[in-house]
Amino acid sequence: MTGPAKITSKTEVEEFLSKYDDFLFDCDGVLWQGDVLLPHVKETLNLLREKGKRLIFVTNNSTKSRKAYTKKFSKLGIEVTPEEIFGSAYSAAVYLKKVVKFPADKKVLVLGESGIEEELASEGIQFVGGTDPALRRDIQPEDYDEIVPDPSIGCVLSGLDLHINYLKLSMALINLQVPETLFLATNIDSTYPTHGKLFPGAGTICAPLVLASKRQPISLGKPSKAMMDCVKAKFEFVPARTCMVGDRLDTDIRFGQDGGLGTLFVLTGVNTESDILAENAETVPKHYMTKLGDIFELLN
Amino acid sequence: MTGPAKITSKTEVEEFLSKYDDFLFDCDGVLWQGDVLLPHVKETLNLLREKGKRLIFVTNNSTKSRKAYTKKFSKLGIEVTPEEIFGSAYSAAVYLKKVVKFPADKKVLVLGESGIEEELASEGIQFVGGTDPALRRDIQPEDYDEIVPDPSIGCVLSGLDLHINYLKLSMALINLQVPETLFLATNIDSTYPTHGKLFPGAGTICAPLVLASKRQPISLGKPSKAMMDCVKAKFEFVPARTCMVGDRLDTDIRFGQDGGLGTLFVLTGVNTESDILAENAETVPKHYMTKLGDIFELLN
Repeated sequence: MTGPAKITSKTEVEEFLSKYDDFLFDCDGVLWQGDVLLPHVKETLNLLREKGKRLIFVTNNSTKSRKAYTKKFSKLGIEVTPEEIFGSAYSAAVYLKKVVKFPADKKVLVLGESGIEEELASEGIQFVGGTDPALRRDIQPEDYDEIVPDPSIGCVLSGLDLHINYLKLSMALINLQVPETLFLATNIDSTYPTHGKLFPGAGTICAPLVLASKRQPISLGKPSKAMMDCVKAKFEFVPARTCMVGDRLDTDIRFGQDGGLGTLFVLTGVNTESDILAENAETVPKHYMTKLGDIFELLN
Repeated sequence: MTGPAKITSKTEVEEFLSKYDDFLFDCDGVLWQGDVLLPHVKETLNLLREKGKRLIFVTNNSTKSRKAYTKKFSKLGIEVTPEEIFGSAYSAAVYLKKVVKFPADKKVLVLGESGIEEELASEGIQFVGGTDPALRRDIQPEDYDEIVPDPSIGCVLSGLDLHINYLKLSMALINLQVPETLFLATNIDSTYPTHGKLFPGAGTICAPLVLASKRQPISLGKPSKAMMDCVKAKFEFVPARTCMVGDRLDTDIRFGQDGGLGTLFVLTGVNTESDILAENAETVPKHYMTKLGDIFELLN
C-alpha cells in the first residue's frame, strides 16, 4: 500500500489540480480557524476559479442558513453565493423535499436554530419548535398531561440547539414513540470545536432521544451518504473528477472516500500529520498538504 | 431449568415469607402508580413489619432527597422514616463520601435537582450547579471564552435535571475533559415513566456528555453494583435472606439477582407476565405475583 501523497512542489500542485474539476471544501479548519482567515486562502480560491474549477462549500454547521453563512465568508473577504454553499440544514430540507417527498400537510418538529428554520421554509416545509420562544421555558406539571403525540408532526429533526431544554426533549421523544415519525439529524458531530475548546456538538442534542427512543436518526451531514446523495443530486459532479478538501478524517475525508471522490487533507484543523501516518490509521487521504494556501504559494 | 414460581396461595406466601428477613422495595409500579396507592399495599407493609421483617425502599429517583421522599409516602398514608429510604442521590453522596473519600476542598458539579444537593449537603460534600438560578440561562458569546476547566471541581454528577441547558452541558463537558474529574450518574434510566407515558430519564442528561467526552459514568442507581455495595454497607443484610421486590426486570430484578438476593416480581408496573415467561427472557425472577397486596390478601 502506498501512503498518502504530500504535495510540496509546483509540479505536484499542477498534477493534483489537473485531476479534478470540482472541489468540495469543508470550511472551519480549512478556510479559517474561528474568525481568522488562514494564509493565502483567498488567493487560492481565486486561482481555482480562474482555472475554471467549480467550488462547493460543504458544512455541517446547521445553525446558519446558506444565506446567513455567506455573510461569514463576506466578513472574511471571500465572495461566495448561497448556491455554492451546502449546509447540513439545507441538506435536511432537500432530503425531506426531494427524497422523502414530505407531505405538505405535515410538520417537522425542529430542535435547532434559525438555520434549520430558514432552509425548511425555503423548501416550503412546515415546522414547529425551533426558535419558538413559547418553548424556551421550564416543563410545567400540566405538560406531562398535555404532551401527546401530535398527528400533524411527521418528522423530528435535530441539529445543534443552543436552547435545548427538557420540554423540547420531551415533545420530541413523545413524538418519536410513534414509529411512523421520521427521525432526522442535520449531523451527529459529538463536539463543536470553538475558541480552542470542544463544546457539545449537534450529536449531543439527539443523543438523549437516541437513548430514550431506541431509534437512530438519519444524519444529513458529513460523513453520511444521505448528504453526499443530496450534494450530488444538486451539483451533478463526476465523483472521480471531484476532490473533497477537509481537516477532519472521520467526517470530511471519510465523506469524500465513501462517495468515491478524491481527498485532500490539510493540517490546519482537528487532525494532524501523525494521525494519517500512524500504522493503524483508519482513514488515509489521497493527498495532503500543510495548508490550503500552499496551492497558491507553490504555484507562485 | 424451572421457571419462576408464581405465588397464588396462602401456603406459598407463608413459604415465601419464611425465606427472607429483609425486603428491598422499588416504589413506583410496586407500591403506587404515579399518585395512586396500589390495593392493600399499606396492609402488606404493616403485616411485614408485624412479622419483624425489615423494609428498605430503594429508588432511582434522584430529584427528591430521602427526607422529601418520605412526604410522598406520607401523602399516600404510609409511614416510613428517611433511614428506610435509599435513593440514588443518597447513594451517590455515600459513594463519594465513603468509597471515593472525596476531598473536602473539592466540589461536585451537579446536573440535577434539589434531591442531589440535599443529599450531598447531608454528607458534607461541596457542590456547584444544581438548582443555581445563575445557570438557568442561555449560553452567551463570552461563555465560550470563560468556560474553562475549574480546578476546584473534582466530579461531575448527573441525574434527572428538568432544567438542563446548553450552558450546563458545556460546563460539565469542559470539566470532564480533565481525565482526573470523576464522572458519576445517580442512575442512567433511559426513560422516566409518568402519566402513562415515557418521558426522558436521567440517562438522557448524561448521554450528551458520554457522547462528547467519550467517557462512561459510574452509575449509583439500580441495577449498578455500586448502589448495591452502598445499600449493603448501610444495612448489613444477608443477601440470601433478603428479597428485592420490583416491577422492572432490567433494573429491579437484575439488581437483586446481581447482588445475590432473592427476587419478587410484581405485575403492576413496566414489565408483564409474558416478559418473564417468554422463551428468550433475559431476566427471570425467582418469585412473582400479580401485585404486592396479594401478600395481605392471600394471608387473610
